[in-house]
Amino acid sequence: MVRSEETICAPATARGGAISVIRVSGKRSFDICEKIFFPTDKNLKFREITGYRLIHGEIRSGSELIDEVIVSKFRSPHSYTGENSVEISCHASTYIVSRILEALIAEGAVAAAPGEFTRRAFINGKMDLSQAEAVADLVASGTRFTHRIALNQMRGGFSAEIRVLREELLKFASLIELELDFGEEDLEFADRKELMSIVVRVKEMADRMADSFRIGNAIKNGIPVAIAGKPNSGKSTLLNALLNEERAIVSELPGTTRDVIEDTIVINGIEYRFIDTAGLRETSDLIETLGIQKTKEKILQAAVVLMVDDIADRPEDVNERASVLREMISGSDRKLVILINKIDLALETVIENFKRNIILENNESLLFISAKDHTGLDELREKLGIFAGLDRIENEDVIVTNVRYSNALKQVSESLGRVIDNLENQLPEDLIAMDIRQAIHYLGEITGEITSDEILGTIFKNFCIGK
Amino acid sequence: MVRSEETICAPATARGGAISVIRVSGKRSFDICEKIFFPTDKNLKFREITGYRLIHGEIRSGSELIDEVIVSKFRSPHSYTGENSVEISCHASTYIVSRILEALIAEGAVAAAPGEFTRRAFINGKMDLSQAEAVADLVASGTRFTHRIALNQMRGGFSAEIRVLREELLKFASLIELELDFGEEDLEFADRKELMSIVVRVKEMADRMADSFRIGNAIKNGIPVAIAGKPNSGKSTLLNALLNEERAIVSELPGTTRDVIEDTIVINGIEYRFIDTAGLRETSDLIETLGIQKTKEKILQAAVVLMVDDIADRPEDVNERASVLREMISGSDRKLVILINKIDLALETVIENFKRNIILENNESLLFISAKDHTGLDELREKLGIFAGLDRIENEDVIVTNVRYSNALKQVSESLGRVIDNLENQLPEDLIAMDIRQAIHYLGEITGEITSDEILGTIFKNFCIGK
Repeated sequence: MVRSEETICAPATARGGAISVIRVSGKRSFDICEKIFFPTDKNLKFREITGYRLIHGEIRSGSELIDEVIVSKFRSPHSYTGENSVEISCHASTYIVSRILEALIAEGAVAAAPGEFTRRAFINGKMDLSQAEAVADLVASGTRFTHRIALNQMRGGFSAEIRVLREELLKFASLIELELDFGEEDLEFADRKELMSIVVRVKEMADRMADSFRIGNAIKNGIPVAIAGKPNSGKSTLLNALLNEERAIVSELPGTTRDVIEDTIVINGIEYRFIDTAGLRETSDLIETLGIQKTKEKILQAAVVLMVDDIADRPEDVNERASVLREMISGSDRKLVILINKIDLALETVIENFKRNIILENNESLLFISAKDHTGLDELREKLGIFAGLDRIENEDVIVTNVRYSNALKQVSESLGRVIDNLENQLPEDLIAMDIRQAIHYLGEITGEITSDEILGTIFKNFCIGK
Repeated sequence: MVRSEETICAPATARGGAISVIRVSGKRSFDICEKIFFPTDKNLKFREITGYRLIHGEIRSGSELIDEVIVSKFRSPHSYTGENSVEISCHASTYIVSRILEALIAEGAVAAAPGEFTRRAFINGKMDLSQAEAVADLVASGTRFTHRIALNQMRGGFSAEIRVLREELLKFASLIELELDFGEEDLEFADRKELMSIVVRVKEMADRMADSFRIGNAIKNGIPVAIAGKPNSGKSTLLNALLNEERAIVSELPGTTRDVIEDTIVINGIEYRFIDTAGLRETSDLIETLGIQKTKEKILQAAVVLMVDDIADRPEDVNERASVLREMISGSDRKLVILINKIDLALETVIENFKRNIILENNESLLFISAKDHTGLDELREKLGIFAGLDRIENEDVIVTNVRYSNALKQVSESLGRVIDNLENQLPEDLIAMDIRQAIHYLGEITGEITSDEILGTIFKNFCIGK
């Protein structure tokens, strides 16, 4: 789908609300709008108006007055797409929006495909591919963390790092290819020691970025937390106590409230998805075989396992339940947090007895809480973030949230791994050059310096229309 | 709620989509925006920028970058509200919208109440009350007719007529009150004959406008059409054939498709609500008592009754069923349309036999259709409009869609009725003056020249936030 000759149009706002915005972009934007838009100030000639201006007027289709509108005019290249663009701000009636689009289409515009505005911004060099993809992430971002990652990527933070890696490799690729040209003469333009150190460094960075995908993906989709525990240990009270911590002060305004997904809780700007391990709830006997299997499946979806227990229980029973869970997650780096709930009902001596008798393994945590009184919940929130690996993320760290980048970065790492081997074994330049070129290719795929129409199609079809 | 000193903010677009627009209005709009909005062009001073300009820049809250945005600046009085106003066009993330609103509120803005922007436009004289109310109707309009009525009202067509009536009365009220001042001298400033003719004319117009509420209300809420008929007479095939006639060519774009309400069909720009008379469907014996009662209740909700029958039936049976329906609606001005369906299966002689033997009463219609082949449907569509009274509406006619106006107009008519009586009976000036003043008062309530805070509160609380 390459049709940059066409002028596209689409609603950029969701259905409903007080106003709707319709976007028009392409060479004929002004011609088309001039035929249906009539400025209130009769002296204004739409075509002659400078960019970054608002114009009040009427949209008409033949003899029908469709609406009174405010039109924003953007002249190429100073627009989102880089093309001549118009945004029509009209009353948010579905009838009006449809009629304006119909009028635009009647004058020669075509309905935009999903992501087509951003795709044009990419094609016209307004942003690279990773920035373009970040626009979709930014629109979807619902928490402080996903917002920060997407905004950083949209502003080119991620691309900048990739470009640095790529340029370092490009320099050496050229030198090595020069050696190939002078093959007979056995010249060595590229300093092997320097090359080795750079390849090692780039590989390390690629590995680190590829690794960040695990946490980036969890942040994007919500960090999965399994919540296990015998019935009546206070699971729902706990979830309710954690819930809505980050409720915005303006959340009563429409357009600001998020869909409430059951058991999804935002804590310190991170979304956690709580996974109910039904098996543990239905049977108090953890050893019961069927229950274990079901529970294990759920537990293995999670990054963190919370075991909620009751201070009224015996420590030995808690230890027994914990060991079953520990067994389930052994070999993985999933973390176990044991929460002893209802301490508002307990004497200090009972708590002390628990502290003495609960057996923890490495990296596990024991917390005493009262979901009812909100005691110990701050510590729990912090522990969740630490167990999810968020403490290891520096503010400036680039975090990969896109599986396409993660895969490309793994390919970069593999290619560079071969370069390192070949350098160590003093293999011929052509082999080394090929693998460096391959690494360069995959880095270029991320920023869009290397793209195919197919890749672009896949990326932009997941955008919403109007973006 | 009078707080015009405050600067208000709210999202003006619905949640979702590619972009969101946040509105800010009030004296401190520019001061507040200046604190969180930083133009990309560092030389621009937000405060100094002229109105009707777009500015690219960043929204920041303390050290947090919230988004890259486009800001529209409107200087008082050249804005929707008449106040200094700003519209912030940001990425449509709920997190971003919330954070921007929070930042505005932190700098001293307050969250807008429903309809508060339009209420301010009214208070600041940008529109009268009937125009302000039309804004809500316009946003809600989903068909060509409701759109046309709302747009006409928003542009003051309705107010203009009301104002003419009111001014004619005001002139006479002043003259009669002058007579009261000179009470002793028995002067007659107001020509009684001229007064009578004007009062009669104004009353006629008020009556006509009040009457238009019945059709206006039906147009706004969908004209109720009962659909009766024995089982398997082809009711669903007929509804499907009528359905989606006005489907927009751009309906695959989000933001343009209307909620599909079962059995709601738009025909020639008018919405019809088809009422299923279950009683007729469940029994083929119309005489069956329970069925009749249920059917009658449904029939009496409708403005038009469609009886769907089968050409394979005997005309006598059709007549019998028709007479039962006719009995139900007798005494009302509901219209009966008899539809003989499945004529694609019938010989011409059978149709002729039907035409001879079906007995119609005044204003009833007999149509032969094939829902399957779409035969006769154009005629049916036209008949529906005629039976709903739409043919009597001229394009320029003012149609009242608001129960508040209808009630006020009825009060006007009653007051003027008393004026006519009193003039005929040559009753004293003070009685006549009082009733004229009352009529003037009710006319003023429509346009908002006479308002109470309570009335305003009731009107605007039904608006959406951001409008």
